[in-house]
Amino acid sequence: MQIIIINGPNLNLLGKREPSIYGFLSFEEYLKHLRSSYPDIEIEYFQSNVEGEIIDVLHKVGFLYDGIILNAGGYSHTSVAIADAVKSIETPVVEVHISNVFSREDYRHISLIAPNTKGMIIGFGLDSYRLALESFINNTEVR
Amino acid sequence: MQIIIINGPNLNLLGKREPSIYGFLSFEEYLKHLRSSYPDIEIEYFQSNVEGEIIDVLHKVGFLYDGIILNAGGYSHTSVAIADAVKSIETPVVEVHISNVFSREDYRHISLIAPNTKGMIIGFGLDSYRLALESFINNTEVR
Amino acid sequence: MQIIIINGPNLNLLGKREPSIYGFLSFEEYLKHLRSSYPDIEIEYFQSNVEGEIIDVLHKVGFLYDGIILNAGGYSHTSVAIADAVKSIETPVVEVHISNVFSREDYRHISLIAPNTKGMIIGFGLDSYRLALESFINNTEVR
Amino acid sequence: MQIIIINGPNLNLLGKREPSIYGFLSFEEYLKHLRSSYPDIEIEYFQSNVEGEIIDVLHKVGFLYDGIILNAGGYSHTSVAIADAVKSIETPVVEVHISNVFSREDYRHISLIAPNTKGMIIGFGLDSYRLALESFINNTEVR
Amino acid sequence: MQIIIINGPNLNLLGKREPSIYGFLSFEEYLKHLRSSYPDIEIEYFQSNVEGEIIDVLHKVGFLYDGIILNAGGYSHTSVAIADAVKSIETPVVEVHISNVFSREDYRHISLIAPNTKGMIIGFGLDSYRLALESFINNTEVR
Amino acid sequence: MQIIIINGPNLNLLGKREPSIYGFLSFEEYLKHLRSSYPDIEIEYFQSNVEGEIIDVLHKVGFLYDGIILNAGGYSHTSVAIADAVKSIETPVVEVHISNVFSREDYRHISLIAPNTKGMIIGFGLDSYRLALESFINNTEVR
Amino acid sequence: MQIIIINGPNLNLLGKREPSIYGFLSFEEYLKHLRSSYPDIEIEYFQSNVEGEIIDVLHKVGFLYDGIILNAGGYSHTSVAIADAVKSIETPVVEVHISNVFSREDYRHISLIAPNTKGMIIGFGLDSYRLALESFINNTEVR
Amino acid sequence: MQIIIINGPNLNLLGKREPSIYGFLSFEEYLKHLRSSYPDIEIEYFQSNVEGEIIDVLHKVGFLYDGIILNAGGYSHTSVAIADAVKSIETPVVEVHISNVFSREDYRHISLIAPNTKGMIIGFGLDSYRLALESFINNTEVR
Amino acid sequence: MQIIIINGPNLNLLGKREPSIYGFLSFEEYLKHLRSSYPDIEIEYFQSNVEGEIIDVLHKVGFLYDGIILNAGGYSHTSVAIADAVKSIETPVVEVHISNVFSREDYRHISLIAPNTKGMIIGFGLDSYRLALESFINNTEVR
Amino acid sequence: MQIIIINGPNLNLLGKREPSIYGFLSFEEYLKHLRSSYPDIEIEYFQSNVEGEIIDVLHKVGFLYDGIILNAGGYSHTSVAIADAVKSIETPVVEVHISNVFSREDYRHISLIAPNTKGMIIGFGLDSYRLALESFINNTEVR
Amino acid sequence: MQIIIINGPNLNLLGKREPSIYGFLSFEEYLKHLRSSYPDIEIEYFQSNVEGEIIDVLHKVGFLYDGIILNAGGYSHTSVAIADAVKSIETPVVEVHISNVFSREDYRHISLIAPNTKGMIIGFGLDSYRLALESFINNTEVR
Amino acid sequence: MQIIIINGPNLNLLGKREPSIYGFLSFEEYLKHLRSSYPDIEIEYFQSNVEGEIIDVLHKVGFLYDGIILNAGGYSHTSVAIADAVKSIETPVVEVHISNVFSREDYRHISLIAPNTKGMIIGFGLDSYRLALESFINNTEVR
Repeated sequence: MQIIIINGPNLNLLGKREPSIYGFLSFEEYLKHLRSSYPDIEIEYFQSNVEGEIIDVLHKVGFLYDGIILNAGGYSHTSVAIADAVKSIETPVVEVHISNVFSREDYRHISLIAPNTKGMIIGFGLDSYRLALESFINNTEVR
Repeated sequence: MQIIIINGPNLNLLGKREPSIYGFLSFEEYLKHLRSSYPDIEIEYFQSNVEGEIIDVLHKVGFLYDGIILNAGGYSHTSVAIADAVKSIETPVVEVHISNVFSREDYRHISLIAPNTKGMIIGFGLDSYRLALESFINNTEVR
Repeated sequence: MQIIIINGPNLNLLGKREPSIYGFLSFEEYLKHLRSSYPDIEIEYFQSNVEGEIIDVLHKVGFLYDGIILNAGGYSHTSVAIADAVKSIETPVVEVHISNVFSREDYRHISLIAPNTKGMIIGFGLDSYRLALESFINNTEVR
Repeated sequence: MQIIIINGPNLNLLGKREPSIYGFLSFEEYLKHLRSSYPDIEIEYFQSNVEGEIIDVLHKVGFLYDGIILNAGGYSHTSVAIADAVKSIETPVVEVHISNVFSREDYRHISLIAPNTKGMIIGFGLDSYRLALESFINNTEVR
Repeated sequence: MQIIIINGPNLNLLGKREPSIYGFLSFEEYLKHLRSSYPDIEIEYFQSNVEGEIIDVLHKVGFLYDGIILNAGGYSHTSVAIADAVKSIETPVVEVHISNVFSREDYRHISLIAPNTKGMIIGFGLDSYRLALESFINNTEVR
Repeated sequence: MQIIIINGPNLNLLGKREPSIYGFLSFEEYLKHLRSSYPDIEIEYFQSNVEGEIIDVLHKVGFLYDGIILNAGGYSHTSVAIADAVKSIETPVVEVHISNVFSREDYRHISLIAPNTKGMIIGFGLDSYRLALESFINNTEVR
Repeated sequence: MQIIIINGPNLNLLGKREPSIYGFLSFEEYLKHLRSSYPDIEIEYFQSNVEGEIIDVLHKVGFLYDGIILNAGGYSHTSVAIADAVKSIETPVVEVHISNVFSREDYRHISLIAPNTKGMIIGFGLDSYRLALESFINNTEVR
Repeated sequence: MQIIIINGPNLNLLGKREPSIYGFLSFEEYLKHLRSSYPDIEIEYFQSNVEGEIIDVLHKVGFLYDGIILNAGGYSHTSVAIADAVKSIETPVVEVHISNVFSREDYRHISLIAPNTKGMIIGFGLDSYRLALESFINNTEVR
Repeated sequence: MQIIIINGPNLNLLGKREPSIYGFLSFEEYLKHLRSSYPDIEIEYFQSNVEGEIIDVLHKVGFLYDGIILNAGGYSHTSVAIADAVKSIETPVVEVHISNVFSREDYRHISLIAPNTKGMIIGFGLDSYRLALESFINNTEVR
Repeated sequence: MQIIIINGPNLNLLGKREPSIYGFLSFEEYLKHLRSSYPDIEIEYFQSNVEGEIIDVLHKVGFLYDGIILNAGGYSHTSVAIADAVKSIETPVVEVHISNVFSREDYRHISLIAPNTKGMIIGFGLDSYRLALESFINNTEVR
Repeated sequence: MQIIIINGPNLNLLGKREPSIYGFLSFEEYLKHLRSSYPDIEIEYFQSNVEGEIIDVLHKVGFLYDGIILNAGGYSHTSVAIADAVKSIETPVVEVHISNVFSREDYRHISLIAPNTKGMIIGFGLDSYRLALESFINNTEVR
Repeated sequence: MQIIIINGPNLNLLGKREPSIYGFLSFEEYLKHLRSSYPDIEIEYFQSNVEGEIIDVLHKVGFLYDGIILNAGGYSHTSVAIADAVKSIETPVVEVHISNVFSREDYRHISLIAPNTKGMIIGFGLDSYRLALESFINNTEVR
């Protein structure tokens, strides 16, 4: 199974930026843990602060990969363009947020991307990414 | 580890109600699968259509259990009282929704409970409950 | 034909509460008149002030009866949970209001239940219930 | 008893326009059924697409007839002028809608006319007119 | 000086409609008084319940007369089309309301026509028309 | 007959402030014209930029004078306190605006004072004051 | 004099729940103090987390007791049904809040119950109940 | 091919009304140019200031013609009735505006008719009509 | 104990202004009763219609007195400046309203001052002041 | 004549993305047709998913070309920056949408770019581009 | 060069009021520093808690001085009257705020005065006044 | 001291774009003046039209430089992502606008970035940059 994690703006600062909200671990360190816990899954990683580059990558992987884990950061709340990209592709997208966006500013309570996703995982710190990964594993079992 | 799943109004109709949205499986059947997959966890289950009874149970387990998985159904969007109960107790609460509430009516886009939860898992069908369970397992590991 | 009338909060005070708006007749007295006028129809009656008990009854009768006449009182304007219940069941529901809700407070102008009903009858005093009953009789005739 | 049915804009297309919502029967055919079912009531009929002509007729019959059944169509949601006319006259007006306006566009959820009416009947297809007629028959009986 | 008074919907019922708000005098009787008080001014009168006919008359007189006194009734609050007509013509228009629209329903607090008028006179009963007439007499004197 | 004109904030700058909107005449000069045109009426004048002083004067004259002409300037749109004062007194108040407030900023479209007044005269330049005066003269004649 | 204190959802957790906001005393302990301070008044007490049970009790005592002190907790902000109950009964109701609801979330700034009460006492901690009690004692004296 | 151009309120003043916005050409003159440029198309023309007459014509041509070019003027922003008519008929309708409605008042930014049209052409002056005509010619070619 | 009662705009008219809402007693007469009932408390009194003078007094007493009872009248709903003053001083402020502001106009439902106060007492007529006084007496006892 | 077509985010997926809305033709294939139909016009083409790159191109061509046809896709509804760019340049811009944005989500009903354009063409599928091209050809003829 | 600093309500408490937001220095002490740093500029100072007195001073200096530095405190967000005064005078006004109003309550995010000012300086503590002064010094140099 | 000026979209057109609002000077020319006036400060300059590139630079300099002067242009009003970047870094950011954004379109009245800045300087033309520079110089002196 081939999965890509796409991180949006400012997530390259993880471990450095507002650690009381986002934790002290860099995403790269976390990714090592994750990959070693799920050795059977190929986990690719992409980060960009540029809205259009995120769209470019969604287009590239969106007809090939088995799953996309997307944390669009601040673009989650403002980008019709990324939301359109998520809707245009065939690979299912799981939206992820590290912090509990609903206990922060009002404008973080709305995600334009959400209606087009397979599901959302919000507020579990970096563990949100692992749960998103889990959602791709045996979601076809019992329903 | 002792976990309780609390289901709110109309979730007793699962498998019967609008199956195109909520699936054909009753919750009891699903619960069997879940328990057998996680034999080490004690998973209790409670369902009620009465807002106040959900609050009663939150009070009862909220200082004893290790985790609460709460799908408050329609009350998620209207109940200040349940939100207050979640905030008043000590056990962490994970909010769960079966369907993608953000692709449905506008009033389902707001959860009064959300700001007081440990995290939310939305839209993965019944698999949302398993992911919630997962969130209690090793969330203390790497952060 | 088997019909149930379900009355919500405060409607047990009919004849006692704000008679200038709701009239001087108790609902039980009115019900006698109604039953004697429609001897061929089995008219059951249920009243509760508890939101969840109304949902319980909707679930119980909602796959068996021929029609439900629902006056959810104050819950009409606030209850996503009852609205979901109405949508989940198979028996058609007619929403009834005694007073003209549109000439009262703004928050009474919106019914969350309405979109899921077969139809609404509003403002005819207790006669609203008779008209609702009529709607079940020959609505299959000419259309 | 002398009753008039006043139909507003586009209702002359009944049977022709969006039959999935409004049915396949023309209003004239329906009217025949209705008149034969209620031989003791004189049922007049008027239709116009012009807002002001509806007001003219309301003025003419509004101090003479026993009842007015008004389906103002699209003007229900926008016409302060018709609402004023309904308030200015003495004959009671029952507002009627064929479709369930509350399950359609938001702007159809508000009727400016409603606060000034004796009551509303919404969503029963053409049967809404018969129920409105019924409301004039024995509403003086038990209250 | 040639002035026209244009009255909109329901104003033909003056003296008959809601006299507690609009008074007991018919407009025709009032007009006699007005004409005899201002013998030097030619006061024409037009009333219609049809929005488009009011526009037709505005077009006809709007490049010829010295002043227009317009009480558009309910159309004041909803008609972009009449507002456009007032803006399109050259004759100055004074907007008049008999009742104090600001102490009534919210939707009467907004006049689409107002921004395009020479001025407004609101709430003086029928005397509003006399004051509007006065505004055309010596408004060029001292400014 | 004893009338007082009360002018609110910035109206002491008339003739000096934004003459394209308010004209070149000072209010004192205009007042001379007005008094000479209506020699039988005692016209007092008060101006203040202090909200509370306007209230003080309304209290003083509001149980003695025959009429109050009030241009509360910017306070018209924000002062609950002046609106309460107008409602508390017995002398009728006519609200006056020099410019057409409805063709300016949105917040000028709402007058908190308006619902408590006898009537409003808006947009006729300084002539608005004369028309207000006229409204006190023969408003008791024909109605 | 017979008074009942009715406490709504989560108030059974007093002394336990968020003590920085609600204090460390349980309501039962506080009640003892209150009863001993006012030995001449019969103070009954009822608490429930169920909206409908609060309505049931309001109906029961609402035509018999001298006063009702109601802290409806989270239901204050959402319950049309309790507000209707308060309006339907004859005993005067005083609304009480322990914390200053106006310095908390926006949705706590609105009480649907408030317009139907005799008065409100907000923000004095548990002392709010004593002040409510005081309001029933000599409110008939000087007014 | 048989096309009709339907112009709504105030468009009969073209060439006369606010020429800085709408240009100096009367619509009749423009129509001559248009017809001579497209000799193979039968272009009918209808103008009315009456909302209901526009609906009448839409009904008449809406099941016969190949295309309707509709500039509903001020009614575009307020008329649910015309929007319903456009939806009820079979002939495709292209909405046209002469001026750029999006650079004018806020209430011109919303067209109730738009969702039911084949397309919209906005802001090209009278040339908007020609472009609308073009849209009917070879829109079936390449898609 | 040194307490000051500060009354805002129009409260000098008490006994004179709208007695159906505010009662027939002047505040001075009421004050006598209050002082004689609480002989151990020094009760000072200040009234002004000027917003800034209320701020001046708040500054003067706000670091010296034991308590402030503030009825800011109409300024309660509009004055950020008084709200800032209340927040800036050290003496606790109790907000008082004579009438039930929540059963009156919408703009009276919001108090800008409220979030900065120790508590609010609303709707008990003049008795509201006595209850406010009571709140300062033994609020330190049991909590 | 030199024209450039600028396509925004996701329009590179044309023919691939949601074909029920956007059609099965890739834009490149369509462009061939268009160029062969208008051999005298030089039609350049640019597409980017990056907001800032669209601005860069607008700056580059905006003082040189004869016309710009801009379909900013999702950025149309959110980008103040592109709107500013359109306003800053001299070449006229025609805004184009393939689908009828007014029959889709609410946030697609607003274009920030629109007020600064020469005109808009909306909803004609790919034919919208041809009509935009037509608008540059003889719009100087008759006006 | 003659400059006046005008401070509005509660700014007389500087150094005393909420020092965590506003600092520990009194404005008089700060003013000494400022004057000694800019010996060539005549810096006058005025403070009042009365809205109308601020207007009076603006009128007095507004046609004489070279610059006005205005911190209207709480009135910034509510006073149409001061905003009108700023617009009415000729001397340019720079608006100043000590704290970052955009990181505080929502109602502090709007300044009615701002649109009429030469510029705004917000959030630099007392240093905001120095920067405002700087803005008057060489703002005519390079532009 | 090391300062960077970061300019956002369209500011590369300065001197060319809407000179009536933004002036005739290019930013490069202005920068020369600024550098020569403050020879002791190292002033770096960066401009980009790409939102993500602005974020990249903020990350790069945000833990090294002494100050950032940011004019994010149109992104100020829409970019949660840039606002997050400003909050994530350690170097203080001063927000700058050339024009008075509060006298322009409504959407320019809100800056998402503002709450996270050290301060804002708005409306002084290019001189805004100098004032921002000044704010970094002696802001530590007297406070």
